[in-house]
Amino acid sequence: MERPSGIITITTDFGERDPYVAMMKGVILSINPGARIVDITHQVPAGSIREGGSIIKETYQYFPSGTVHLAVIDPGVGGKRRPIAALADNHFFVGPDNGLFWPIIETQEHSEVIHLSDKMYWMREISPTFHGKDIFAPVASHLSKGVDPFLLGEKIDNPTTIAVPLPRKENSDLVGEIIRADHFGNLVTNISREEISEFLASRGCVIKIGSLVLKKISTTYGDVPEGEPLALIGSSNLLEIAINRGDAAHDLGEKCKIGTKVTIRFANSATN
Amino acid sequence: MERPSGIITITTDFGERDPYVAMMKGVILSINPGARIVDITHQVPAGSIREGGSIIKETYQYFPSGTVHLAVIDPGVGGKRRPIAALADNHFFVGPDNGLFWPIIETQEHSEVIHLSDKMYWMREISPTFHGKDIFAPVASHLSKGVDPFLLGEKIDNPTTIAVPLPRKENSDLVGEIIRADHFGNLVTNISREEISEFLASRGCVIKIGSLVLKKISTTYGDVPEGEPLALIGSSNLLEIAINRGDAAHDLGEKCKIGTKVTIRFANSATN
Amino acid sequence: MERPSGIITITTDFGERDPYVAMMKGVILSINPGARIVDITHQVPAGSIREGGSIIKETYQYFPSGTVHLAVIDPGVGGKRRPIAALADNHFFVGPDNGLFWPIIETQEHSEVIHLSDKMYWMREISPTFHGKDIFAPVASHLSKGVDPFLLGEKIDNPTTIAVPLPRKENSDLVGEIIRADHFGNLVTNISREEISEFLASRGCVIKIGSLVLKKISTTYGDVPEGEPLALIGSSNLLEIAINRGDAAHDLGEKCKIGTKVTIRFANSATN
Repeated sequence: MERPSGIITITTDFGERDPYVAMMKGVILSINPGARIVDITHQVPAGSIREGGSIIKETYQYFPSGTVHLAVIDPGVGGKRRPIAALADNHFFVGPDNGLFWPIIETQEHSEVIHLSDKMYWMREISPTFHGKDIFAPVASHLSKGVDPFLLGEKIDNPTTIAVPLPRKENSDLVGEIIRADHFGNLVTNISREEISEFLASRGCVIKIGSLVLKKISTTYGDVPEGEPLALIGSSNLLEIAINRGDAAHDLGEKCKIGTKVTIRFANSATN
Repeated sequence: MERPSGIITITTDFGERDPYVAMMKGVILSINPGARIVDITHQVPAGSIREGGSIIKETYQYFPSGTVHLAVIDPGVGGKRRPIAALADNHFFVGPDNGLFWPIIETQEHSEVIHLSDKMYWMREISPTFHGKDIFAPVASHLSKGVDPFLLGEKIDNPTTIAVPLPRKENSDLVGEIIRADHFGNLVTNISREEISEFLASRGCVIKIGSLVLKKISTTYGDVPEGEPLALIGSSNLLEIAINRGDAAHDLGEKCKIGTKVTIRFANSATN
Repeated sequence: MERPSGIITITTDFGERDPYVAMMKGVILSINPGARIVDITHQVPAGSIREGGSIIKETYQYFPSGTVHLAVIDPGVGGKRRPIAALADNHFFVGPDNGLFWPIIETQEHSEVIHLSDKMYWMREISPTFHGKDIFAPVASHLSKGVDPFLLGEKIDNPTTIAVPLPRKENSDLVGEIIRADHFGNLVTNISREEISEFLASRGCVIKIGSLVLKKISTTYGDVPEGEPLALIGSSNLLEIAINRGDAAHDLGEKCKIGTKVTIRFANSATN
């Protein structure tokens, strides 16, 4: 197993107004005073396991191996879902077993999932409504100090899965969808650079997003005139629909939004 | 006196848009390069000493003993209120003497309050409008390095007090109020788990919040159907009024808001 | 050259919702696990080089010498603008060559600007749309570890300049303008304490801001009755127009906004 990096990232849907994230940081630093804590975001839409999972998947790989990624998007807090730690791609993931880490687990050949059951690594008193503070934060902190993850509970082979919208082939088209709008209004799709890499350099293509049609994958925003829409690989290494110096989420409105289908037809087969 | 933990928390009403909090962090790190800084929140409603004080009281205890809690909610900046450091419950509190730390001080048997008057521990130039940067940040940083707090100024025994709305007995009822809405719309009251602990397990009760009547204290959100209101102990260890998978602050509107009276009548005496 | 402080500040227009800032932090910590990272703000208005530059200029000086200030306000990402590092006033500045650091460079007698061209200090793969993560973050991290800045590329003497609105003398008046509204609604001008220092103590003056006329420069908010407008030196050491316990940006509306001219006529010459 990877040596811990001493870094703990935190992803939640708690917002920045309340002291809840700070309470978790206090718990972490009480157990491991040397932990370095990095916020990924606390603005995941409330309860959105799918968006939270996608953000963690896009981000974790930029941290050193052995980093602990603590995430609390947990609509079922206090219910029966298990608390888990997952070990995948030399990183640790700690949070609720509600599918949040499934997008990462399902793409790794080897991974381990541990049902957190040993209360020795929890806070002494467990609030039924804030497992983030009472279970996940202390477990993440112990992991960052080098506690053997297999001491935290028993291995399980049935973590909760969720249907992650993955791009699929339809005849010779590649069909994905818009999964998120970012701060700039760029519409992020679920199509990664890798999935279209062979086409980025060599061949032309036509991209249809609802009723919007784009004739190529651009390299950067300035490749089209100001105010014009374009498709390009964005900051998360995913295809995104943007408007040069504009806000695509706002300007394209109902035409292109979360869930809208994105079809890439490569030039060879394009008859349209 | 407690050894410093090297951690400094910061609570303000400055928001996240301006560079003011970063200026304070620069001052702190210039004096103690090893300080570890944790933001509690910068979204306290502007000038709300009562809400700021409540948030610090709920949060500080999760940090290690010897942590310095720097807080700047300071409507009277530049006026005559004194700058103070308070030592209570093995933690340090640094900020304006306007009642901000009174909720913590008044519940501790032993505490010390020091009027910060020795300018040796301040910035060389003191802006009349930003004591956070020029007095509180450098003092907090010196404390985090182990400077004896009694060197910072003279002990005082008359810190400014504020009326903190505490729950009270009325006949056999317990009467509190709603003090805050959090990011999820949960309505946090001033009634703590401890105050109702004997009733949580053993006896039924009726909770009246304005015209809303609830028949029990639930354990977790899922104890009632989606969309239904409930009362439970929330993330701050305080009784809160919530709606399962809903936003109580929005959905209950005028019926339940900050200041609304919350009455707990225990089953033995409930005739209603 | 200054020894690095090990601190890296980050200023962007990315907002707090997306994981982009966290990706940069992951890259930084992968290269220099001991780096201490401080956010200045991520709420610079999108693409506003002028406001971003002003904020960095007001803030950097509170950090220890040898701090690296990483800034990504970069409307031309992927275009032809160069990536640069600037050395000025014993601090390092890393970001796009689009004028962002010009307000700092132009006021320093000695400074060096380096065109970042040695790809050894970049990420292996460079995304055309996210130089913050792929060029600026790794370069900042290397600088924070003590890499000689002159190894990062070649010195240039033609960094991009921008017209910074500086206050000017008009007859015996000093004429500046409002450059920003802060979280409290205080209207920050481009007139610094230094520029009016001789008048602060000794002589009266009349300040005109659009149609609003103020008869003095106050020391603190409480110098005027609640609800009344005033001019004073604010938290950034700049003259600001405020309302005691009010929100000047909101209450003064169209009368006083970003770009509104601010004229200071000193008492000797005041006939109005």
